[in-house]
Amino acid sequence: MWSYVPPIRDMQFVVDELLEVRKDWAEIPEFSDLDADTTPQILDAAGQFVVQNLAPTNAGGDLQGCRYDTGSVITPDGFAQAYAVYRDAGWPALACHPSFGGQGLPQLLNAALYEMLFAVNHAWSMYPGLTHGAYECLRNHATEAIKSIYLEKLVSGEWLSTMCLTEPQAGSDVGLVHTRAVPQADGSYSISGSKIFISGGEHDLTPNILHMVLARLPGAPIGTKGISLFLVPKIIPGDVPRRNGVQCDGIEKKMGIKGSATCVMTFASATGWLIGVPHRGLAAMFVMMNAARLIVGLQGLGHAEMAYQNALRYAGERSQMRAPVKPENAAPTIRSGADPIVYHPATRKTLLTLRAYVEGQRAVAYWCAHLLDIAEHHPDGARRATADDHASLLTPIVKSFCTEKGFQLASAALQIWGGYGYIHEYGVEQSLRDSRIAMIYEGTNEIQAIDLLVRKVIADGGQKFMGLLGVLRDEATLCIAAAGCESFGRVLGQTYGEFMDATSAIIADAPANPELAHRIAADYLYLAGLLLVGSIWARAARLASPRRTEPFYASKLQTAQFFFDYLMPETRLRLDLLNRRHCALPWVGAN
Amino acid sequence: MWSYVPPIRDMQFVVDELLEVRKDWAEIPEFSDLDADTTPQILDAAGQFVVQNLAPTNAGGDLQGCRYDTGSVITPDGFAQAYAVYRDAGWPALACHPSFGGQGLPQLLNAALYEMLFAVNHAWSMYPGLTHGAYECLRNHATEAIKSIYLEKLVSGEWLSTMCLTEPQAGSDVGLVHTRAVPQADGSYSISGSKIFISGGEHDLTPNILHMVLARLPGAPIGTKGISLFLVPKIIPGDVPRRNGVQCDGIEKKMGIKGSATCVMTFASATGWLIGVPHRGLAAMFVMMNAARLIVGLQGLGHAEMAYQNALRYAGERSQMRAPVKPENAAPTIRSGADPIVYHPATRKTLLTLRAYVEGQRAVAYWCAHLLDIAEHHPDGARRATADDHASLLTPIVKSFCTEKGFQLASAALQIWGGYGYIHEYGVEQSLRDSRIAMIYEGTNEIQAIDLLVRKVIADGGQKFMGLLGVLRDEATLCIAAAGCESFGRVLGQTYGEFMDATSAIIADAPANPELAHRIAADYLYLAGLLLVGSIWARAARLASPRRTEPFYASKLQTAQFFFDYLMPETRLRLDLLNRRHCALPWVGAN
Repeated sequence: MWSYVPPIRDMQFVVDELLEVRKDWAEIPEFSDLDADTTPQILDAAGQFVVQNLAPTNAGGDLQGCRYDTGSVITPDGFAQAYAVYRDAGWPALACHPSFGGQGLPQLLNAALYEMLFAVNHAWSMYPGLTHGAYECLRNHATEAIKSIYLEKLVSGEWLSTMCLTEPQAGSDVGLVHTRAVPQADGSYSISGSKIFISGGEHDLTPNILHMVLARLPGAPIGTKGISLFLVPKIIPGDVPRRNGVQCDGIEKKMGIKGSATCVMTFASATGWLIGVPHRGLAAMFVMMNAARLIVGLQGLGHAEMAYQNALRYAGERSQMRAPVKPENAAPTIRSGADPIVYHPATRKTLLTLRAYVEGQRAVAYWCAHLLDIAEHHPDGARRATADDHASLLTPIVKSFCTEKGFQLASAALQIWGGYGYIHEYGVEQSLRDSRIAMIYEGTNEIQAIDLLVRKVIADGGQKFMGLLGVLRDEATLCIAAAGCESFGRVLGQTYGEFMDATSAIIADAPANPELAHRIAADYLYLAGLLLVGSIWARAARLASPRRTEPFYASKLQTAQFFFDYLMPETRLRLDLLNRRHCALPWVGAN
Repeated sequence: MWSYVPPIRDMQFVVDELLEVRKDWAEIPEFSDLDADTTPQILDAAGQFVVQNLAPTNAGGDLQGCRYDTGSVITPDGFAQAYAVYRDAGWPALACHPSFGGQGLPQLLNAALYEMLFAVNHAWSMYPGLTHGAYECLRNHATEAIKSIYLEKLVSGEWLSTMCLTEPQAGSDVGLVHTRAVPQADGSYSISGSKIFISGGEHDLTPNILHMVLARLPGAPIGTKGISLFLVPKIIPGDVPRRNGVQCDGIEKKMGIKGSATCVMTFASATGWLIGVPHRGLAAMFVMMNAARLIVGLQGLGHAEMAYQNALRYAGERSQMRAPVKPENAAPTIRSGADPIVYHPATRKTLLTLRAYVEGQRAVAYWCAHLLDIAEHHPDGARRATADDHASLLTPIVKSFCTEKGFQLASAALQIWGGYGYIHEYGVEQSLRDSRIAMIYEGTNEIQAIDLLVRKVIADGGQKFMGLLGVLRDEATLCIAAAGCESFGRVLGQTYGEFMDATSAIIADAPANPELAHRIAADYLYLAGLLLVGSIWARAARLASPRRTEPFYASKLQTAQFFFDYLMPETRLRLDLLNRRHCALPWVGAN
């Protein structure tokens, strides 16, 4: 009863109409020969994989979970088979460079693939989820020798990888990492220490696992400037492959993503190789973390899409009580006096809220992925630099806003099922549990907000962020000139202006008030997310307006109107909170 | 590591200072002789029970869950022992009338007891949770013969009870119930049908279970006006007690409250007795449902209190990163550069939000319980009637607002633990899962909102509700005249005025717009909840202001300021949404 139809029509709308990516692809040599059929072919094939091979393992994987047995982890039934299909179809290679066996397709398509993977099985998708980040990290920072041994194995999916950052005392604060790395005579390092919360630290999907490990060299400075990055394979390749000194000492019992093994890992004089420059491991790891943050944002999106589709279907099937008003074409109320709950205003509001955020956030997340493609491939260096800046600003927004909404919307959808929503077999309670982790890992949503406001917006006096948000102003101008979209343009333009004023005021006040930015960072990020989604709906309405007789575009116009009527007003609350800069925040102790 | 300290100091502040209940008790013969020590003695004893006997069974009960075995349900280890202690200590009898073996104490104290029960073990507390409602229902609607057989057993806790409303096709819409009741020659009825989601439908805590069952008599009118209420005991008492034709056919696998057996019940020609008038079963059941709705509101409160206490403790113990500012008396930052996260602004905001809602909602919920006492016991008929009206208006607000916040705040608290929050052994993820059900059962929160606005506020032109909210206006006036509280009074008074204006406008527009009230009901209820909590904080500040040198009262003033600075602004968003009465809400279909 929990089912998934890949939202390919909407994905195409985002790619072709909202983002007009083909204009940019035409300027990029690697992508200029992609014909118009490539995107739909890839999306269709990905959709078939997730529906046929992956979705059937989701509920069972949650019930069964992973099993730990003296160093080994057995994944739920069907996980390994699904991975074999995924690997053999070449999905890990989608957006990797052909020189390492990749297909050389845009990361944008990888984002669409991952949205679908997460929608149908978040837990399973954790295993391949770090592949692209590890690939980027090694490609940019590893020696040629390391690349030649490991990169193709990652790209082919023959091996999988992890990110080993967290230790019991070092979570958000990675500078507290204790794991040590001692140089060896042969140029390798001996790695010792304990890591926790390592997704896919051990499993039975691939014969080897490549651990990307943060550790300290002897005499390293305290804090984040004394951390180096090492590659520590589970099996050391060679003429005689040998087991490395790394092992899984247990897996966590978690609220959700139970099919994903969250491992306690012990490194006992394990052999590793330095990736990048000593003490600059975080810089190298950030390539991987940024890729992972976009991926995590897609988890929120995938959960919300899944919850939306199923809630919409269920609301049409379930009849309870008479609706106060019904559409003209509705069937007559049955004898018992009950109407389908999709006619009830509270249900419609929930469904429209889901639709508005799902479709709006999809466009924002895909935009971020598209910017990564431009940043990597565009021949114009200035375009690359700007796209890189903009992707770096969008990443924390996508990670935080999409995961917060993913969880909230899964909960909102659950409510549509009433008591059935709380029961495992109806599926949505698993979405709620699975989606919750995405607000935490890869940098908590609070860390994302500080990253955006303190480290990125304030750091350069708001210049780059204001540059990025110029699209809001431009969209507002276009809407004001477009028949039927004037009111969207006016609201967007005015809110944009107030957000810019608030930003300037925060930047002006921050130096004298060291807490200010930390105090309001979450509201700031949330408002940015709302405004971005608002600008997407304004643009969608503008594009849809001339085609309003077609149902797909009529729905876009309707959802845009709903967003501006019912959801956009929250921008005023967030602006109000941003503008209360004088409010102190007391210290908290026992009552 | 998950621990609970009964918040008795704050409970006393609510009872003695915010609500000044002793003034009212003095006018009530049954309570006028309660000496000043009664309340603290009862609260202390309840606190000891929950900490010593009940809390230790919570995490294990979640892991173990209930076991179903051919009609029987085995509750988790320790549940039956904890119930025996509870029963033997006389807790079921606390607020029942002495003529049935009760202690005759105020329901207000029962509310405090239940807050503590739910805080430490929601699942266990489901079993006795319906006792008081069933007691009220039988006391008010059963024949003397029925009362003489069953009431004392309920009051003593020897037997427990259920509410059997829901059927697969009849959830929110109880009018769709199919279960049939056929009159028998001996005056009893033969009950046949299936019920689902029956909490405590079967268990091993008591030898008998009293099912309160909604069913239809032959020829009953369609809908809610054709439903009658029956008492169907699991064991029919008598010289030779005999098993009745009711059995449990299975239990649900749920997201949370796993130690509570959620049963599928089959009634196969079971013997039952009519309670109240034929076809008027809902009216009789509503006594029970209203009692249960207040109890469910206390679930949200209990979870939020538990989450708050533990998050506050953890935030003091966990150090990550340097705080932008620290209090003057803080210990120097340790060498690693990390400060306790309780100094970080994002953490403080979360903790203060938890504190502000927990303490504010406690006062609102206890107020509702106190009104029930006045409605039942006050010698002045007019006072009784007004209290009954006000309790009936507060009940849906307490149910909906406290349970929505309970879930939200459990989630907010979870975030403070970072990755640890997602792991079972840290406790908070269970609170999040357990708390979610309270937004659904006993009438979904959407149904509560319609109950408040459509059935109660609009139905009498807003008269009674405006009467109830007169306390807001009065509190605003008192604050404006109190040193240091003027700004609270002004904001409260202005928001109250705008809420009254919005209420009048809704009432005026509703007849011509049958969807209007349904569309905005949730925002209306939420705003009412926010305003009530706001008025509690204004009053708390006014009472605390003269004693601001004492830490307890200083904290009250500080939290009041936080509420008005950071949380009260949301009233403006909700007013904005209420005032967008012209916005249509589209029909929703496939995209």
